[in-house]
Amino acid sequence: MEFTLRRCDYILSGDRVLQGVNLVIQDGFIKSLGSEVEGDEVECRGMIVIPGLVNSHTHLGMLYLRGYLDDADLDLWLQRIWEVEREIPETLMNLSTEASIIESLMSGSTAVVDMYFNPLKAKEVAERYGIRIWAGYVFLDEVYDPFEVDKKTRSLIKEKSELFTPIVNVHSLYGAGEMSLKLAKQLNEELGLRVQIHLSETRREVYQVKSRTGKFPLEYLHSSVGLNRNWHLVHLGWVTSWEIEAIRREGATVTHCPTSNMKLATAGFFPFKEMMEAGVLVTLGTDGPASNNTLDVFREMKEAVLLQRNNYWDYSVGASHALRASTVNAYSSLGIGRGRIKEGETADLTVLRTQRLRPLNTSRVASALVFNATGADVEFTVVRGKLSFKRGKLESKIDGLYSEIEKELEKLRL
Amino acid sequence: MEFTLRRCDYILSGDRVLQGVNLVIQDGFIKSLGSEVEGDEVECRGMIVIPGLVNSHTHLGMLYLRGYLDDADLDLWLQRIWEVEREIPETLMNLSTEASIIESLMSGSTAVVDMYFNPLKAKEVAERYGIRIWAGYVFLDEVYDPFEVDKKTRSLIKEKSELFTPIVNVHSLYGAGEMSLKLAKQLNEELGLRVQIHLSETRREVYQVKSRTGKFPLEYLHSSVGLNRNWHLVHLGWVTSWEIEAIRREGATVTHCPTSNMKLATAGFFPFKEMMEAGVLVTLGTDGPASNNTLDVFREMKEAVLLQRNNYWDYSVGASHALRASTVNAYSSLGIGRGRIKEGETADLTVLRTQRLRPLNTSRVASALVFNATGADVEFTVVRGKLSFKRGKLESKIDGLYSEIEKELEKLRL
Repeated sequence: MEFTLRRCDYILSGDRVLQGVNLVIQDGFIKSLGSEVEGDEVECRGMIVIPGLVNSHTHLGMLYLRGYLDDADLDLWLQRIWEVEREIPETLMNLSTEASIIESLMSGSTAVVDMYFNPLKAKEVAERYGIRIWAGYVFLDEVYDPFEVDKKTRSLIKEKSELFTPIVNVHSLYGAGEMSLKLAKQLNEELGLRVQIHLSETRREVYQVKSRTGKFPLEYLHSSVGLNRNWHLVHLGWVTSWEIEAIRREGATVTHCPTSNMKLATAGFFPFKEMMEAGVLVTLGTDGPASNNTLDVFREMKEAVLLQRNNYWDYSVGASHALRASTVNAYSSLGIGRGRIKEGETADLTVLRTQRLRPLNTSRVASALVFNATGADVEFTVVRGKLSFKRGKLESKIDGLYSEIEKELEKLRL
Repeated sequence: MEFTLRRCDYILSGDRVLQGVNLVIQDGFIKSLGSEVEGDEVECRGMIVIPGLVNSHTHLGMLYLRGYLDDADLDLWLQRIWEVEREIPETLMNLSTEASIIESLMSGSTAVVDMYFNPLKAKEVAERYGIRIWAGYVFLDEVYDPFEVDKKTRSLIKEKSELFTPIVNVHSLYGAGEMSLKLAKQLNEELGLRVQIHLSETRREVYQVKSRTGKFPLEYLHSSVGLNRNWHLVHLGWVTSWEIEAIRREGATVTHCPTSNMKLATAGFFPFKEMMEAGVLVTLGTDGPASNNTLDVFREMKEAVLLQRNNYWDYSVGASHALRASTVNAYSSLGIGRGRIKEGETADLTVLRTQRLRPLNTSRVASALVFNATGADVEFTVVRGKLSFKRGKLESKIDGLYSEIEKELEKLRL
């Protein structure tokens, strides 16, 4: 399969910005950047091409809860949301996962890391629409027996495909006990599975773990499970400087979710710059559509920069850091490739209209992507060399899903 | 002139959300809400109708600088930007004002308060496209002779029209000296002109004013000019609690610009909740497109909520506060009307597609407007009962302006 993104206004190619060139895609990879044209032609005048964005942490199945409870801090929010989730029919969760997958593609994400209770549905839908997904069952002791989660996780191994990678999800240190951690560690070590966990998100969590174990959350996790390159730590607004050093040493990945943390008033200071300087793989995630409330990685990039500048009274984190987190770092962490548009690289691409991002020139492209763009500017999304989304092609599909969700919500009076 | 917004999915009418009704507009006012149909029909199935949003502080003429300098704090930024502005041809500034007016309408603003050097151009363009504008010359002593600014401001009085209201702009306490303040006070008292000023934006500004005068910025301004309902104070990230009391007593308006303040690392803590509780008219502004970098009041509403929750570790400021600031409070401050969609009220309206905001029901509309919507969701903008923007109708116009700006930037190597 071969096609050409023709006459692209701008292509973000590593640290350079190319102007007015063609990008040829062949069998999932970038074949050339220049004047060559091969196969079908996709007109890209008035477009910017960038590496596809990775949403490194979300809960796709929670879309039905978008706008249900916006005024709460994390503790109150979890308590109320869990009450609703316990009673929710699987249909609603699955419709949400499907709508979220489409929204992700429509807003330019080419890969998502999910934490929800329906990973097989996530896989099925991701494969149907063509997006990369990392998903798996969740250790959450109040609701699921750890041994059951372990068993179901093992059954996911055979499901691995070109787009789907099974992972282990551990909700958090307050949501999963020692047995769950031990099982997660085994799954990680025996089967090489990636483990995703919410960590050091609130001051309360840090206080509780420290009181109970004498250690800060990351220290405690480190001492119980060891950590390695396949551990994926989410939030860390309350991490200490000495914990950062352990993360760096073990090569774990970190995901920052600024919008959700701000909305849920978890406060803290996510040390973006210190982590990047230490060489930690910092990535960005929207968190779920019930706490963000979008799935828009463009908006998340801007929020990450703004939050750093506000919290640290310092402007040294900028557009380039946000772009690196959502592309280069995330690709490296997930093993997708290098997250750079170069010959021979994986063809995961996001193509945006310049329409709402002008005036532009080569030196202003990165700025426009972070400080102006939103998912609404996305025209095409290319995953593994396939055009998964083209503006106008999935809108009626998602409208139908929203209508079904709204009908279910009405029945449940949510 | 009469027309009907027909079959609106949702109408935000005060604290209520109406479903599936028609909104009839006659001679600039809302004639009815219900089943009546009069004049031309505008199909609004799949749409939400809300009071038109007010952008209470911006610098329209700076659009050409969008993306020119994103990595700087306010002091460095002003220094570098002022250097560029001194040399800039008026054409570029005027093209920017025109493009910014169109962007404002396209993203759902029905009124803007401007601070830039070309108020007559702003008036002309605002009247051409149909948006309410408050604009006036700027007291900025390093560049303009205060007596010249005074004279030119007086000449603006005769320009007042249905859409244009002349105001006095005072850059800041560090940009304008005692003579400028005295002249601004006279213009305010003699001619009833509104005075807009940047105040208490940085710690450095507070320190300098306090060192020089023994007073905090607002205290100093209060003691020199007196303040009243026509004073319009912008930023106030570093205001003290006792200054808030003076603002409340004098009835001055306050504008918060969270995105710009965060991007320029001015830090501080804007006391949104305390001010609202004290009864101060708090409004929101995007600030200029060179420091935001959008003119999108929807995004500003979300940022205002997120920033409060982050800075105060408290979730009590929510969607309703942001909506009130951008509508009810701003309308009251500017004397446009009440900012509520009711029979007999001014027909300044923003109409959005629900497409990217679902799932929706009446209790989720406010949330979707603040936490999901962006200007890209706007389909129509109605100002004084006239359809000033309809999706698809101004895009080629603005594309042409962007191209002209880009050509000028190339010549100037900016």
